Amino acid sequence: MNETGRPQDFPLSNPRADRVRDVAKLAGRPARLKRGQFLAEGPQAVREALKLHQRRLAAGAPGVVTEVFASESCLDRFPEFEELAEGTNARLATDEVLAAMADTVNPQGIVAVCRFVDAALADVLDAGPRLLAVLCQVRDPGNAGTVLRAADSAGADAVVFTASSVDIYNPKAVRSTAGSLFHLPVVLAADPAELATACKAQGIGILAADGHGHLNLDVLQDENARRRLTGAGPDSVYDLAKPTAWFFGNEAQGLSEEELELADHRVAVPVYGAAESLNLGTAATVCLYASARSQRRAAATAGQEQAV
Amino acid sequence: MNETGRPQDFPLSNPRADRVRDVAKLAGRPARLKRGQFLAEGPQAVREALKLHQRRLAAGAPGVVTEVFASESCLDRFPEFEELAEGTNARLATDEVLAAMADTVNPQGIVAVCRFVDAALADVLDAGPRLLAVLCQVRDPGNAGTVLRAADSAGADAVVFTASSVDIYNPKAVRSTAGSLFHLPVVLAADPAELATACKAQGIGILAADGHGHLNLDVLQDENARRRLTGAGPDSVYDLAKPTAWFFGNEAQGLSEEELELADHRVAVPVYGAAESLNLGTAATVCLYASARSQRRAAATAGQEQAV
Repeated sequence: MNETGRPQDFPLSNPRADRVRDVAKLAGRPARLKRGQFLAEGPQAVREALKLHQRRLAAGAPGVVTEVFASESCLDRFPEFEELAEGTNARLATDEVLAAMADTVNPQGIVAVCRFVDAALADVLDAGPRLLAVLCQVRDPGNAGTVLRAADSAGADAVVFTASSVDIYNPKAVRSTAGSLFHLPVVLAADPAELATACKAQGIGILAADGHGHLNLDVLQDENARRRLTGAGPDSVYDLAKPTAWFFGNEAQGLSEEELELADHRVAVPVYGAAESLNLGTAATVCLYASARSQRRAAATAGQEQAV
Repeated sequence: MNETGRPQDFPLSNPRADRVRDVAKLAGRPARLKRGQFLAEGPQAVREALKLHQRRLAAGAPGVVTEVFASESCLDRFPEFEELAEGTNARLATDEVLAAMADTVNPQGIVAVCRFVDAALADVLDAGPRLLAVLCQVRDPGNAGTVLRAADSAGADAVVFTASSVDIYNPKAVRSTAGSLFHLPVVLAADPAELATACKAQGIGILAADGHGHLNLDVLQDENARRRLTGAGPDSVYDLAKPTAWFFGNEAQGLSEEELELADHRVAVPVYGAAESLNLGTAATVCLYASARSQRRAAATAGQEQAV
C-alpha cells in the first residue's frame, strides 16, 4: 500500500494471465473444493467478506479473504475498501481482468477470493442457538441464497444445509445472499437425522414447513398470542417462542417422508389465494419471521417482568 | 381434435417456419406490444392460463389463450391438457420446435400464446379490494414475478405495477409467477398519485414498506393483537385489518420521496440479524401476510360475534 492506502503496483491488465484464470476457475465446483476457496463478487459481498475477515483477525482467528482485486474507479467510488482490505493481498486490476475473473458479466469493479466460511454443526449447537433454518436438498442456488438472506434478516443463529443441497459457494448462490453468507454461521452437508437428535437433546423443537401440515401457522400464531395476552401460559400445542429448528424442503418435492418424521410438528403456511404452493423463499420468510417475532416478544415480556 | 381429443394433424416439425418464429418473437417486448400477446411456457403456467381461459369463456368473456403447442410426450404425461385446451387452437409440435419457440432452454413440452390479461385499475377498485400490492418501479423480472406469486399466496385482491416497472409479460417474469399471473387481476402502468387518491376516496389505507419507516411492523402487529384480545378496539395508529394498499419500491433505491409521501404510514419490516436490508420478495411477503392475517382474524371475530 502507498500513502493513500492504494495498492502501489500497476493494475493487472492481461485477462489471459494464469493468475486471472486461476481466479475464474473458482466458478466451478472442482476448483473450489480442491482449494477450499470461493469468489465474492461486487462491492456488497466483498465489503461483508472483508468485515468478517477483520473481525476474525481481531479475535485472533484466521482471516477469510486471501486476495482482493479492484479497479481504480471502484476504489474511487468506495474509498472504505482501502481500509477494509488492509493486510490482505490487494491488487488493482482493469475492468477487463475483473470481467474475466468474475462469473457475473459486471462484477462492479471488485472481486475477492475467500476461504470457505462454513462452520461445524457441533460449534453451532454449542453456542445454544434459538433459531435455525435447515435447508433439505434445496437445489436452486438463487433460492438457497435468498433463504440464507431471509434467515439473516429474521435473526436466525445459523443456516444448515443437508447433504445433496446446492453448493452455497456457487457464484449465483453467493450473489443471492447479498453478503449474508458472511453474517451468520452456515453448516454444510449435515445429516438431518443426526441434526434432529442433537436438537432434541438440547431442547430445540423441530418444525417442518409442509404445505400439507396439520398445523396452520397463522392459527398457531394467534393461539400463541391469545395465551400470552390472557396469561394462559405457553401454548399447549407448540410455543413458537421456544428454540426452534425449521426444516425446509426441496423446491419441487418439499420435505421427504424421512425428513418430515424428524419433526415435532408439520406446519403449513396458509395459502389464502389461488396459488398452488408457496415459493420456498416466501414460505421460509413467513416461518422464520413468525418464530423471530414470538421469541423477541417473549424475551421482551421476560425483561419487563424482571424489571418489575 | 380426434376421438382421443388430441390435435389430429401431424406435429409442427420445422423450427425455422414462420409460425414458429412468430411465437419466438414474443420473447421481445416490441412484438408483445404490437400483438398484445405473450408466451406462457411449461405445464404449470399453461395449465393456469387455460383454466383462466375456460373460466372467462364460461362467463361469456373473451378467452385468454389463442394457441397451444405441445409435444406428444407432454400430452402423455399431462392428459388433462386435452380437455383444458378444448376449443383453443391447439397443435402438436416437436421438442425442437418447442425449444425454438420458448425463451427457456427446456419448455417441458408445452407453450401457449396468450392475450394480455391485465385489468383496468377502475375495475379493480370497483370490486372493493381489501388487499393490494403496489410495485413501484420494480426492475427485475424475477422479483416482480416472485412478489406477484407471494401476493397470490397471501390472498391479495390485485397487484398493481406503476409505470417504469419491468414488463410482467417478460418471459422470466411470467415464469417466476408460477401461474399466479392468471389467478388475480394485475394492473399495469398505474400512476401512483392517481392510485393513492382513488384508494383514499374509498377508505383503503396506504402503507409504504420502507426500511427507514417510523413504524415497526412487528410492534404494530403486537399492538393490534393486544387491543383486539383485550377488547381495547382497533389500533389507534393503524388497524392492519382495514383495507390496505402496500407500496413496495425499487430493489436498489426503495420508494421515492414522492411515493413515500402518498402513504399514511411508512412501515419497516424489522431486521433482527446483520442483513443490511431485506430482499424485495422477503419484505413484500412479510407485509402482505401480516395484513392477510389481521384481516382474516378480524373477519373471523366478526363472524363469531354475528353468530352470538
